[in-house]
Amino acid sequence: MQVKNIAIMGAGLVGSLLSMYLKKHGYQVTVYERRPDYRKAENYGGRSINLAISERGWKGLAGVGLEEMVREIAIPMPGRMIHDVQGNLNFQPYGKPGEAINSVSRGGLNVMMIDAAEKAGVTYLFEQRIMEIDPSGKKAMMEDMSTGRHYTLEPDLIIGADGAYSLVRYAMLKTDRFDYSQAYEAHGYKELTIPAGPNGSFLIDRDALHIWPRKQFMLIALPNIDGSFTCTLFFSLEGKESFEAIKTLADLDAFFDTYFPDVKSLIPDLHHDFFANPTGLLMIVKCFPWSHGNTMLIGDAAHAIIPFYGQGMNCGFEDCTVLDTLIEEFNHDWSKIMPAYERLRKPNSDAIADLAKLNFIEMRDLVADADFQFKKRIAAKVSALHPDRFIPVYSMVSFSHLPYKDALSEYHRQDAVLTEILGWPEIENRWETDYLPQIAERLFNK
Amino acid sequence: MQVKNIAIMGAGLVGSLLSMYLKKHGYQVTVYERRPDYRKAENYGGRSINLAISERGWKGLAGVGLEEMVREIAIPMPGRMIHDVQGNLNFQPYGKPGEAINSVSRGGLNVMMIDAAEKAGVTYLFEQRIMEIDPSGKKAMMEDMSTGRHYTLEPDLIIGADGAYSLVRYAMLKTDRFDYSQAYEAHGYKELTIPAGPNGSFLIDRDALHIWPRKQFMLIALPNIDGSFTCTLFFSLEGKESFEAIKTLADLDAFFDTYFPDVKSLIPDLHHDFFANPTGLLMIVKCFPWSHGNTMLIGDAAHAIIPFYGQGMNCGFEDCTVLDTLIEEFNHDWSKIMPAYERLRKPNSDAIADLAKLNFIEMRDLVADADFQFKKRIAAKVSALHPDRFIPVYSMVSFSHLPYKDALSEYHRQDAVLTEILGWPEIENRWETDYLPQIAERLFNK
Repeated sequence: MQVKNIAIMGAGLVGSLLSMYLKKHGYQVTVYERRPDYRKAENYGGRSINLAISERGWKGLAGVGLEEMVREIAIPMPGRMIHDVQGNLNFQPYGKPGEAINSVSRGGLNVMMIDAAEKAGVTYLFEQRIMEIDPSGKKAMMEDMSTGRHYTLEPDLIIGADGAYSLVRYAMLKTDRFDYSQAYEAHGYKELTIPAGPNGSFLIDRDALHIWPRKQFMLIALPNIDGSFTCTLFFSLEGKESFEAIKTLADLDAFFDTYFPDVKSLIPDLHHDFFANPTGLLMIVKCFPWSHGNTMLIGDAAHAIIPFYGQGMNCGFEDCTVLDTLIEEFNHDWSKIMPAYERLRKPNSDAIADLAKLNFIEMRDLVADADFQFKKRIAAKVSALHPDRFIPVYSMVSFSHLPYKDALSEYHRQDAVLTEILGWPEIENRWETDYLPQIAERLFNK
Repeated sequence: MQVKNIAIMGAGLVGSLLSMYLKKHGYQVTVYERRPDYRKAENYGGRSINLAISERGWKGLAGVGLEEMVREIAIPMPGRMIHDVQGNLNFQPYGKPGEAINSVSRGGLNVMMIDAAEKAGVTYLFEQRIMEIDPSGKKAMMEDMSTGRHYTLEPDLIIGADGAYSLVRYAMLKTDRFDYSQAYEAHGYKELTIPAGPNGSFLIDRDALHIWPRKQFMLIALPNIDGSFTCTLFFSLEGKESFEAIKTLADLDAFFDTYFPDVKSLIPDLHHDFFANPTGLLMIVKCFPWSHGNTMLIGDAAHAIIPFYGQGMNCGFEDCTVLDTLIEEFNHDWSKIMPAYERLRKPNSDAIADLAKLNFIEMRDLVADADFQFKKRIAAKVSALHPDRFIPVYSMVSFSHLPYKDALSEYHRQDAVLTEILGWPEIENRWETDYLPQIAERLFNK
């Protein structure tokens, strides 16, 4: 299968990173995007939705020389800051000293990547809409939305990097033996903002991902370089306590007074933003295969997950680095690259989808739970004493390149071991003094 | 919500039955079908895919006065005839004496229903293709394929009865909170034919659904009124023993000689048909909700299942009879009818999907298993002695109108009880003489 021209659908983070890797391998790459040029758009600037870049993400960026530039607009978050209802704080490190996930604005990162890709010779065309796409062939009917002109696209390969609602993927739905599921969560989300303090100061601790866990729902906040925090409330869409149930300003005040009294005064536009901002939906997408004829899926288009492990972009970037290796390995033979790519990635994207679901329960419910905190303390201690023999699951996911599927197996193994250890006699008093060697032996990664 | 004109997409069995129910309630009903008029098509005649009509199907037909007419083209099958590799036969009744499922040709039934619907005042338009459909509104862009003319359809309600690959459903995919899954089975199927004997005689027993269970695959045969049998081979698509692995006439002969020696001589066109007939795929579709704005799904479009309980059409017909009742109950207010319909039907279509999967294992694997047969014998005996207190699951599904979801719960309850009973001391010798009252007590439906 001879490939020279590649069309990427979608100028988002994964589409843009992919375009640079493909360019590096000598392909002619054009990126088609339905939306107007982000760089001219107003509401895609310094704030809006935040991302947490971790190890896999950095590797993706480093491979095209972008790591350092992005580090400059990212804020390291070495741990979670838990806020209870009384306003008490509890800081839980994510990993070892020096390890952190990194808050960065989606808009800022995207603009930086598009600029870099164009510089590298990738062509970007905005306001180009897919009208119809033939999943088995090389053909797409497109519309230039700025002029209304229709045209046919016939590249050697079409890659759908067009996100959770991928039109490329929807076209593949009707092909033989295409397994597919999309499932919405009962929780939705709403963005709110804690503005910067005087002179761009941070009104809460800058160096953390803040969480207000409240069992059935939670609020989180990530720092921005301008001193503000992007907050997200994850909350049931329907039911007694839900977005639907908050109908008036009085309902809203009562809700925040009860559950988030310490944060209410930090969000001056709460009344306006809560009712003016849209309620976002969370959808999990799984499908297989990810390729058909001359068409392939990547990133959220192939495997949209929920955001609770902060791995959506990181996983999509890892798709790119794996593909990068396979292009080399199979010497540009896409008839071998694509099946190898989907076979390698599918078990891992399924695993991170599961881990993200588990982490949602952990974040909103368990971070404030005594048993959970005790387990984390034990795991952290063993990890500190034996960094070469024990890696906690969060570290495997966020600070290593180990396959997600191995992290998921480890999650289940470690959790079973820790649960058993919790039942040992007088564990709370004796774990550090008496049991530590035994505990460590049980926890060591195989 | 005022509804006068209803467009049904799909002139298949469910679309046609629905059209008659809606007509009965006074609506103006037009049925749009992509294919040419079945009545003029050649290969949709007396043979091709067969169906097994059971109780729910008869109720659907009776409600529009079609039961008697269909009985005349149906062949009752009171039980399964199991063929082992040695050619031994074992007949297992499906229910009580007088109870049977009924073999009927899909083509013949469909033609009969279209004729009846047209007579009742329903308009049928063939070769009409959906180009684009607005799932929230009342609008569909259509193409008359016989002339190439495009036109816009704006009925008060669009009902997708367009089968497992429903275009109406695919349009709903992009609406908020639409949960969806389509999953292909590892098994596919191939149709083969046992022709009639001299003077339209039946070469094997007419009064049974024939099964050649072979663990990982199976062959079945249903009688046709012309003396022939429609056979279907259900077989893995890929692997050591699979459709893919049978590449030559010699492979095919060896396969039939090994597993179906008694049936090989009955299929004179085996060599031709096996390689000329397409390999069918089996897909399970689940989605929710089934309605959006002025659009609704019914039958396979809402819940495609695999054919191993013979309930696909029966379940779709039950959709129609439930809808019939709700139109009455909510006095034609479709804003109430549609949510009630999908809430009532969804748990039942999920349950029959599960039961069909379980029945596939039963048919291909267990019908020849000693424990399974013993369980069936016990259940049959208790049912015969206490017909008013115990209904086996197969009878609940096929010979009653009890909700499928209750049948699924009963499946799990009865199977657990029967498995336990199998462990009683000397059960094989003593079950009829000593244990029967106890067994019955345990098995009685709650």
